[in-house]
Amino acid sequence: MPSKKLYKSKNLKISDIGEKKLIKRLLSRSRALQPNSPFFDEFYFKSLSDDAALIDLDDKYLVITADLLLESTHLPQDMSPKEKGMKVVTVNVSDLAAMGATPIGFMLSLGLPGTLPLDEFDEIIEGILHSCQKYDIGLTGGDTNQANELILSGTILGLVDKKKVLMKSGASPGDVVAVTGPLGVAAAGFEFLLSPPLVKETLKAEINPSTLRLITKKALEPQARLKEGIMLANTGAVTSATDITDGLASEVDELISASSNNIGITLYQTLIPIIPEVEEIATLLDHDPLEFALYYGEDFELLLTIKKDDFVHLKDQFGLQEVGVVTSSGKMEIINKDGKTNLLKDKGYQHFK
Amino acid sequence: MPSKKLYKSKNLKISDIGEKKLIKRLLSRSRALQPNSPFFDEFYFKSLSDDAALIDLDDKYLVITADLLLESTHLPQDMSPKEKGMKVVTVNVSDLAAMGATPIGFMLSLGLPGTLPLDEFDEIIEGILHSCQKYDIGLTGGDTNQANELILSGTILGLVDKKKVLMKSGASPGDVVAVTGPLGVAAAGFEFLLSPPLVKETLKAEINPSTLRLITKKALEPQARLKEGIMLANTGAVTSATDITDGLASEVDELISASSNNIGITLYQTLIPIIPEVEEIATLLDHDPLEFALYYGEDFELLLTIKKDDFVHLKDQFGLQEVGVVTSSGKMEIINKDGKTNLLKDKGYQHFK
Repeated sequence: MPSKKLYKSKNLKISDIGEKKLIKRLLSRSRALQPNSPFFDEFYFKSLSDDAALIDLDDKYLVITADLLLESTHLPQDMSPKEKGMKVVTVNVSDLAAMGATPIGFMLSLGLPGTLPLDEFDEIIEGILHSCQKYDIGLTGGDTNQANELILSGTILGLVDKKKVLMKSGASPGDVVAVTGPLGVAAAGFEFLLSPPLVKETLKAEINPSTLRLITKKALEPQARLKEGIMLANTGAVTSATDITDGLASEVDELISASSNNIGITLYQTLIPIIPEVEEIATLLDHDPLEFALYYGEDFELLLTIKKDDFVHLKDQFGLQEVGVVTSSGKMEIINKDGKTNLLKDKGYQHFK
Repeated sequence: MPSKKLYKSKNLKISDIGEKKLIKRLLSRSRALQPNSPFFDEFYFKSLSDDAALIDLDDKYLVITADLLLESTHLPQDMSPKEKGMKVVTVNVSDLAAMGATPIGFMLSLGLPGTLPLDEFDEIIEGILHSCQKYDIGLTGGDTNQANELILSGTILGLVDKKKVLMKSGASPGDVVAVTGPLGVAAAGFEFLLSPPLVKETLKAEINPSTLRLITKKALEPQARLKEGIMLANTGAVTSATDITDGLASEVDELISASSNNIGITLYQTLIPIIPEVEEIATLLDHDPLEFALYYGEDFELLLTIKKDDFVHLKDQFGLQEVGVVTSSGKMEIINKDGKTNLLKDKGYQHFK
């Protein structure tokens, strides 16, 4: 096995290069080392950079994706054990939703501190099973390990007709860019939840109680748009899709990068669905609500591009919100409230940075 | 969602109950909460406690298993980054081997400390890809996360003909109990590697260099018996199988527990394949080499029960070692060197204990 380096990496640490570059590095090494495997004659991997990997099974794709949650990185203190369990299922289901696939099984690898109370373990499992039931998935197996911190590592499997699969690639100029629901709600929730204790107490007194419930519920108990993803895939009108985990801008950038054509996407600021509750929290916290929508994620809504002629009737059926248009500019742009067009930067959340 | 407790768990911690009970607890909760899922009408899960889960795909089973390795728990300091990468593939492939399944894809979720040198990351990936290539598996996707320690979480998928799948259940009285290779070799390697530095230096001077190479290689670069598992499944002569990860006794106990009949298994001490190198290390470390074989694991050999009439010709073809016989006693027993029959206890390695 040759150990040629694809990049100069002397003295560099993981934290020096960021998550996206790390994944690209991994994939490029993978491509360099694996092309001669006889395996690749039998099976064909459609995409290594989509929301999930596809494996050829006659007229269907087996869809697989993995998402790992760590107590220290992904799970806020306010999250209950049950909510933690629910979340590891939701993040995985959301990736299947983005591809229009129906889940067929969920695998769970757990890392558990020896000091974890058994009651909390039970509640985590309850959350996992609750969400498995909600999305009609069987918990097919897993693995338990002693660990320094709570680790919830999920892998989900699904099936989708080859003709119906939704991918990040496929958008064409003229397509409508749409989302399945309001954006920045989870961001508002997390910004509240992660405030220092004293700030939080003050905020609690100022925030409308129904707003508080809405934003914290979205942050702590997000839902995957599974039904919508499957139904939208069945319409045949969706040209590309992904789930919004890292913010609208980052996901728009993903659709542009995935396209084999030189497409661009232009968003209309006035159309981005920001609900009054998000405005309320942003104002109180002295934040720009648009930033919540563009750069935060965790809402688990779907981002879609849809053929223009089909959008009109799908809009109402699925409660879709038009947010932009696919262009041939090669750029990611946003038309601001005042009508000016600006370049939009991808600065979604990245680990290690 | 009702939150009834299936066991009394007040004030108990994970470390109070041990891994096997924890998994049973998880599975019983899963069965209690999931039976009404419409999902279960469509797909049928053959086993939740086998080496891997099975999902019905027409004439084949999709076989899935997950194994997570943690730096603090599973990876000895002497293991190189490349060997760590190799191991996360091997442990997962071994579970497929035990079911006679052909791998079709490997998913990798990584937890990485920000301080991890990029060179080490590259070597880990190189190890993963090296093993993927060795077993003809594509790396289909994954996930990277910032973590406090190195976490390698693998999920592997395979396919096997329904008629050929190897399960833990299926052994009948009279079947030969056999293994695919010598036992206790990895144990000897780990006992050496985990010795205190000064002891290790002294041992190095005393151990035959070829012994040292053999035992450390087995501990640090174990191989999965994939080819053998697939070919043995094709013979139709294997009645049950599992891989030996936690020691022979523990796995024999698994085969007995999995059987719907009241079978027992009797091992013959004189037949258990312990190579001279393992005897050498055991003597130097003042250990019983039989303990290495019975209670240590990590060799990744397969444990099989085989129809008596078929064993004779399979023995030579696959280098199988007869170690015992399936009985109708309901007990796990061992006939010692002096001809006495003793009950054998399952005390394989368990996390959390």
